[in-house]
Amino acid sequence: MTVATKPSPQTKTRRLEQLAILVDQALERLLPDATAVPPIVHEAMRYCVLGRGKRFRPLLCLGAAEAVGAQARQALPVACALELVHTYSLVHDDLPAMDNADERRGQATCHRKFGEGNAILVGDALLTLAFEVLGRNGTPNGLEIVRIISHACGTTGLIGGQVLDLQAASHTLASAAKALTDIAQRKTAALIAASVVTGALAGGANANQVRAAQRYGQDLGLAFQLIDDMHDQDGLAAAMGVDAARDEAHKLISRAVKALEPFGRRADMLRQMADWLESTSERAPTR
Amino acid sequence: MTVATKPSPQTKTRRLEQLAILVDQALERLLPDATAVPPIVHEAMRYCVLGRGKRFRPLLCLGAAEAVGAQARQALPVACALELVHTYSLVHDDLPAMDNADERRGQATCHRKFGEGNAILVGDALLTLAFEVLGRNGTPNGLEIVRIISHACGTTGLIGGQVLDLQAASHTLASAAKALTDIAQRKTAALIAASVVTGALAGGANANQVRAAQRYGQDLGLAFQLIDDMHDQDGLAAAMGVDAARDEAHKLISRAVKALEPFGRRADMLRQMADWLESTSERAPTR
Repeated sequence: MTVATKPSPQTKTRRLEQLAILVDQALERLLPDATAVPPIVHEAMRYCVLGRGKRFRPLLCLGAAEAVGAQARQALPVACALELVHTYSLVHDDLPAMDNADERRGQATCHRKFGEGNAILVGDALLTLAFEVLGRNGTPNGLEIVRIISHACGTTGLIGGQVLDLQAASHTLASAAKALTDIAQRKTAALIAASVVTGALAGGANANQVRAAQRYGQDLGLAFQLIDDMHDQDGLAAAMGVDAARDEAHKLISRAVKALEPFGRRADMLRQMADWLESTSERAPTR
Repeated sequence: MTVATKPSPQTKTRRLEQLAILVDQALERLLPDATAVPPIVHEAMRYCVLGRGKRFRPLLCLGAAEAVGAQARQALPVACALELVHTYSLVHDDLPAMDNADERRGQATCHRKFGEGNAILVGDALLTLAFEVLGRNGTPNGLEIVRIISHACGTTGLIGGQVLDLQAASHTLASAAKALTDIAQRKTAALIAASVVTGALAGGANANQVRAAQRYGQDLGLAFQLIDDMHDQDGLAAAMGVDAARDEAHKLISRAVKALEPFGRRADMLRQMADWLESTSERAPTR
């Protein structure tokens, strides 16, 4: 007779790290090889995608597939597509005509290294490749996943958020917490929620499971942006004050974890992601 | 007893015009409405998409659905997605970091009118919307259509062509007809071929029909770029000489029409598109 032992925190962290490596390897395989594309795009796509992200969205996607009873790796193509979409949004947001950023993930931004024209094209190529990956894999609910990810990236999601952000930067009229919450909802929470929902769908979720995944992802996504702003001491955290932001993030994460109840122990990876996020809020500056 | 009468050239032209209007109306319906998106994106998306294109790719798509025995309008969502993708590529190609164009389709380019940041986002939004349209419609072979269109837009297609084009402009080493043919293949023929193939798939094509559609689209697409260059007196036409370019375009169009034989009379709309293209080559400057 075997006795089930509770995995140690180290074992659980190691599992997340292993899955992040699995995502990195899959991304490496699906980026175009040097023979098929102009060398500069090949190099620039790899430069932007490989090796540096936290893989937060892919891990949520894999965790959601597991939560509905599938193997995590069944959602691997969808997880990769989400990371490609996320990276495209960073490359375009960093452009001189947008946030004009010099550094990203500890290295020069794409346009600083490869030029502005190439950076625009690399972003376009990553977004396009995401849909090609979704299109060529026989993942369950494939077309519904295309719809959800493209919707999260669209004018009511990522792009709408960036437009509002640009306007806020130039007009400084959107400093109110309400307007900033709207931007965070679109720019961050929409794609994070889509990561959880599409992972669940790739695992064959039913409608109730999709709704629970959506609730978890939506709350976690907003908490993610709050905590990010706490670290940068700007945006929503600056508008609300750091203490109120930390309380709000804590409330959102607790509610997200509560939404996981119907999944039972299968949602432990998603709980662990929530724990990880909560722990990062504790490392944010206190004022 | 009714006697089948051959439709007059006027009737046939009128049908193409009517279908182009149907595409315009469908595009108008599926662009985001002003309540859901920041007003400037709403206005800019409509400015770029509505009212001015020839709708060449959508009409090929509808014609291909008809060629395989379906109603043309069954491919309408796919036809709209193709026009959105085509418009996105124009908006991004016109940017200052790319071709730096001031005018497009007889009006100021998107970035001249709405600013560079908004133009980047509008292009992104149009590309994203194309996939959302494909994702939310229950068109037959939907996921395969996503794969084919994204592949045609990717690093071996549209984007790869634009990268090579940028390099050719800055290094002036790609003046040889062979290199320019490679660019035309990627920048133009890939999406035109995809328009025909996905229209056929949306109409429920079998594998043989898909192959015939691909042959027709590929040749027509290359002829399209040749003739475009003849009008502009640059690119491939300048490298080959105008007379050689016209001969080559004629040869390609004849071969494209030959590929339609298995479809019989149902492919008349695609034949008419080929006739129209041939007629535009006759209006190009002779040297």
